[in-house]
Amino acid sequence: MERVRVSPNVSLPMPVVLVGTRLDTRANFMPVGWCCRANLAPPMLCCGIHRAHATPIGIRENGTFSVNIPSSAQLDETDYCGLVSGATTDKSKVFEVVYGELKTAPMIADCPVAMECRVVEIVSLPSHDLVIGEIVAAYADPAVVRNDTIGMAAVDPLLLTMPDNTYRSLGEERGRAWGTGRRLMETR
Amino acid sequence: MERVRVSPNVSLPMPVVLVGTRLDTRANFMPVGWCCRANLAPPMLCCGIHRAHATPIGIRENGTFSVNIPSSAQLDETDYCGLVSGATTDKSKVFEVVYGELKTAPMIADCPVAMECRVVEIVSLPSHDLVIGEIVAAYADPAVVRNDTIGMAAVDPLLLTMPDNTYRSLGEERGRAWGTGRRLMETR
Repeated sequence: MERVRVSPNVSLPMPVVLVGTRLDTRANFMPVGWCCRANLAPPMLCCGIHRAHATPIGIRENGTFSVNIPSSAQLDETDYCGLVSGATTDKSKVFEVVYGELKTAPMIADCPVAMECRVVEIVSLPSHDLVIGEIVAAYADPAVVRNDTIGMAAVDPLLLTMPDNTYRSLGEERGRAWGTGRRLMETR
Repeated sequence: MERVRVSPNVSLPMPVVLVGTRLDTRANFMPVGWCCRANLAPPMLCCGIHRAHATPIGIRENGTFSVNIPSSAQLDETDYCGLVSGATTDKSKVFEVVYGELKTAPMIADCPVAMECRVVEIVSLPSHDLVIGEIVAAYADPAVVRNDTIGMAAVDPLLLTMPDNTYRSLGEERGRAWGTGRRLMETR
């Protein structure tokens, strides 16, 4: 197959989450496209966040943060939070805010899924903080709960592709993981 | 909104990548669902990989690895690589293998996007290694290149949702990032 060299600044199609922090005493939310799970047990995730943002300041000050998964119905509010900085704009009224066990990790009551996290480690990379946090507790809208866990299709999350800067939905089913590949086990 | 507490082991809907490593002298590939960008400049990404796998051994030995984005046409081969371990099965013939600048980071010639990475840091978490790598070079099928970068819709990547263990496609467009939220700037 022919291949061409492209810029190494490749973006993966990522779920958009809203990271909640306390800035001074008010809740602040920032959309983050670089977030993924990092450890299984205890459950941890990591977020890559540019240090120019206000969010890393709140995370470092409190040692806590939240990760909320908005549904596509919250697209406008989610995008708005990425257009204005918490350093100059009060975003605490964009969503209904709720606190859990950690007291300093504001969560979004209107998001179908919300997690409160305690900082485990912050890896300081050249432009970004890679914030590793333990998911201390998670909460969900009962409408998206399936067999005691999250039914992600019911969440209707937003996926972000760049550099076309497009929010997309989760698409159709293509196959079973740890399943469809079995047919190759028989032939090899 | 009513909220219920759920298991903190929440999975995000993630793009599936194939991480390429050298095990002894042969190429090995493992599907990874915990991979995201970590730093902007220089471009870095991170992968959360359970230490029980053979892949972290290859990464630690060589200090290099590749991240390949399969298309949905490669679903069976991708899933197969997750069903068998490189410790006991030779997966070097599943795809056409190609090497780039780093010499020890086998890439998949058939994948629409392939990146070769040099290890920056490995954060050792309780069950997983969080491997941070710099994307040294990236290559793509000309059919998915748009204006010198990747057109992710053309890649037709696989998204994995858990615990329903379902591969899904990238769905329809929902809005413009850094765009649709502007209407809220005018009203606030």
